Amino acid sequence: MFDLLIQDVLWQGQRVDVAITGDIFAAIEPAGTLAHCSAKRRIEGRHFLLRPPFYNTHTHHAMTLLRGAGEDLPLMAWLNERIWPREARLTADAVAAGTRLAIVESLHTGCVAFNDMYFHQPAILAAAQEMGVRACVGLMFMDQVSDHIENEATLALREGLPKTLALSLAPHALYTTTPEQLQEIAHLSDTLGLPIHVHAAETQTECHIAQTRFNAPSPIAYLDRCGVLKPGTILAHCCHLSEEDLATMAARGVVVAHCPQSNQKLGSGVFPWVKAREAGIPVTIGTDGAASNNSLSMIAEVKAAALSAKLGAPSPESVTLSEVDAAATRLAAQALGFTNAGEIAPGRDADCLLVDLRLPAFAAGNNPDADFIYAADSACVDTVICAGRIVMEGKVVPGEAEILAKARAAATILREE
Amino acid sequence: MFDLLIQDVLWQGQRVDVAITGDIFAAIEPAGTLAHCSAKRRIEGRHFLLRPPFYNTHTHHAMTLLRGAGEDLPLMAWLNERIWPREARLTADAVAAGTRLAIVESLHTGCVAFNDMYFHQPAILAAAQEMGVRACVGLMFMDQVSDHIENEATLALREGLPKTLALSLAPHALYTTTPEQLQEIAHLSDTLGLPIHVHAAETQTECHIAQTRFNAPSPIAYLDRCGVLKPGTILAHCCHLSEEDLATMAARGVVVAHCPQSNQKLGSGVFPWVKAREAGIPVTIGTDGAASNNSLSMIAEVKAAALSAKLGAPSPESVTLSEVDAAATRLAAQALGFTNAGEIAPGRDADCLLVDLRLPAFAAGNNPDADFIYAADSACVDTVICAGRIVMEGKVVPGEAEILAKARAAATILREE
Repeated sequence: MFDLLIQDVLWQGQRVDVAITGDIFAAIEPAGTLAHCSAKRRIEGRHFLLRPPFYNTHTHHAMTLLRGAGEDLPLMAWLNERIWPREARLTADAVAAGTRLAIVESLHTGCVAFNDMYFHQPAILAAAQEMGVRACVGLMFMDQVSDHIENEATLALREGLPKTLALSLAPHALYTTTPEQLQEIAHLSDTLGLPIHVHAAETQTECHIAQTRFNAPSPIAYLDRCGVLKPGTILAHCCHLSEEDLATMAARGVVVAHCPQSNQKLGSGVFPWVKAREAGIPVTIGTDGAASNNSLSMIAEVKAAALSAKLGAPSPESVTLSEVDAAATRLAAQALGFTNAGEIAPGRDADCLLVDLRLPAFAAGNNPDADFIYAADSACVDTVICAGRIVMEGKVVPGEAEILAKARAAATILREE
Repeated sequence: MFDLLIQDVLWQGQRVDVAITGDIFAAIEPAGTLAHCSAKRRIEGRHFLLRPPFYNTHTHHAMTLLRGAGEDLPLMAWLNERIWPREARLTADAVAAGTRLAIVESLHTGCVAFNDMYFHQPAILAAAQEMGVRACVGLMFMDQVSDHIENEATLALREGLPKTLALSLAPHALYTTTPEQLQEIAHLSDTLGLPIHVHAAETQTECHIAQTRFNAPSPIAYLDRCGVLKPGTILAHCCHLSEEDLATMAARGVVVAHCPQSNQKLGSGVFPWVKAREAGIPVTIGTDGAASNNSLSMIAEVKAAALSAKLGAPSPESVTLSEVDAAATRLAAQALGFTNAGEIAPGRDADCLLVDLRLPAFAAGNNPDADFIYAADSACVDTVICAGRIVMEGKVVPGEAEILAKARAAATILREE
């Protein structure tokens, strides 16, 4: 008996039946083949496209509460004047409310996992667990706001976490940490067996700080000197990379979390997609927080990544849809430590989307997979399954209205204080 | 008696009542003020944001049928190998079906007007009129496919058009027309009183053709030499502009239709937003056709325009949301000849959107106008009003299911032939 049977769904140009047992894809067979099998639950897939969900490799999820709070500002002014003063007032309850809102929004845009860097991590882990999504939550290291860091409390939760949740060590950035702190984090990463997640080479200002404050040729060179660049370290942004930086990154085995819309909106710069690919560096995609994007839509982010990479390529066809899609699915799931997720195949973790093909974007029907990335939006995501659990169905997340109401209340308090 | 009364809606940070009589905004007053007035129809606006709709200044609407037909190709290969062979098989019925699909999709993303350049113009005009949206439809001039041009039939319809419909002269591009043809079109523009709409300076290839085939320093210089650059001429794309080109464009009074996503996806180049602004050239925004974007969402296009302009600006805050929004609303309506549309004020044409604030993107509530452009998508557009007529309501366009079914059938025939 299967737990879930999705019947007659479109997948990679074929109509198939898909069976899920527990948190694993049990079988994928031509449509009709599994119809006679017993299953606790059946979904009629006739109008749906089946595809892998997204895995967002860089975000500050609870910043949904700060969305729109500081438009049309450069990065440092935005942080100093609008974001950090508000963040100093954040409570664990507010972070829980903002994180749940972000998870709702992410599910509507087809994303089941997030790599978070934010305060009050126990509240983030609880929100993700309750809503049934995957998360890798970073212990924050950031001198200026160390009062709000609860790293020990977070670490104490580690043993009890389900396999959909993970921890990382997340020094904010080179300009908010000391060399000693980064060296200690690099050491902790070894002793605790936790990966590192850090902002890196985001802005020219950061490059300038690496040179003037730390006497390093680049942010990447400085982070490497501190020992932070390890196999699996996730470097968010990476807009400013020299040839030497690319070689260092490839040699260390780090992963990029490319955030094209945030980088454009804040005028930070452009991650060199083709050069990174040629250097053999794995690239994944993140939305960044809702205060700097301002969307958490991974559909939109993957399109932006594709367009930005095509524009920067010698020839636009050298960056293909499947390459960019893999960066937000298979490679991203791996980068977050969910190594059995990110692909639809028997034996793999049962994460998938059912996309509603009855929407205008899919009417022509020439290439539904391309239509999803290049022409669709949240309106088309009908059902989201994460580790075998239906976490959104019929375009509604369980408890959605209450989650939105709580987020509205939390944002109002934050704004008025 | 008002024809339509929208009660207690959020507009520019205030709650207002909005009255429409015929195709004109009759009154906008503080919420509650107009509640006692009689009206043929009332809409409860409590959950909605009121804002101007978009006006799409460059598209090939019926290309919705060709969406996804040729992914990951450069512009000329895409045209030669995938698009033009299929277009040679297009019928008026197919263009009607594709245009209606495009109008449905545009309405869902808040757009009431399109500047079209495509074949079978009488079918395009009929679709726009029937669905109640605005259109400026170009008489096509394009040597290679002249069998399909029905310019005389289109011109004969001119006198009978409602004021929501207009015509233009649309030579495709310098590489698909002769100098004599362009000179004749420039002359016709004067004698018929019709504006010109042309692709200009889109790719490096086009720049090369201007130089080698026409011995001109640039596409802009060549089009100017042919007399095509007149007050109000709409130049689509404009990725490759010299300082001289910018000065010429400003002196002639032309308007740019900036298509950021198409330009990125095809690797065409980047329109220099800040330089054009500094030269005093009016800039508007278009999606281009669904085969090269591949979306017709003006919400997404305005975001892409803002992000691209911020990235290219000396400082990202020098390009504001309101500047980019105006390019897709007030300036775009003017450019299409709908000079009384594009702004919400008493006496102006009654074009507007009701945006559903109950969606996740708006939960924080810090800046609903920014949330609409930067964080929302088609899911939030509830109601669209064009020239006083409700053309979409409750997230459904009248006849939508039938329009989608006909488009599916037309695309299937085109694909299989």
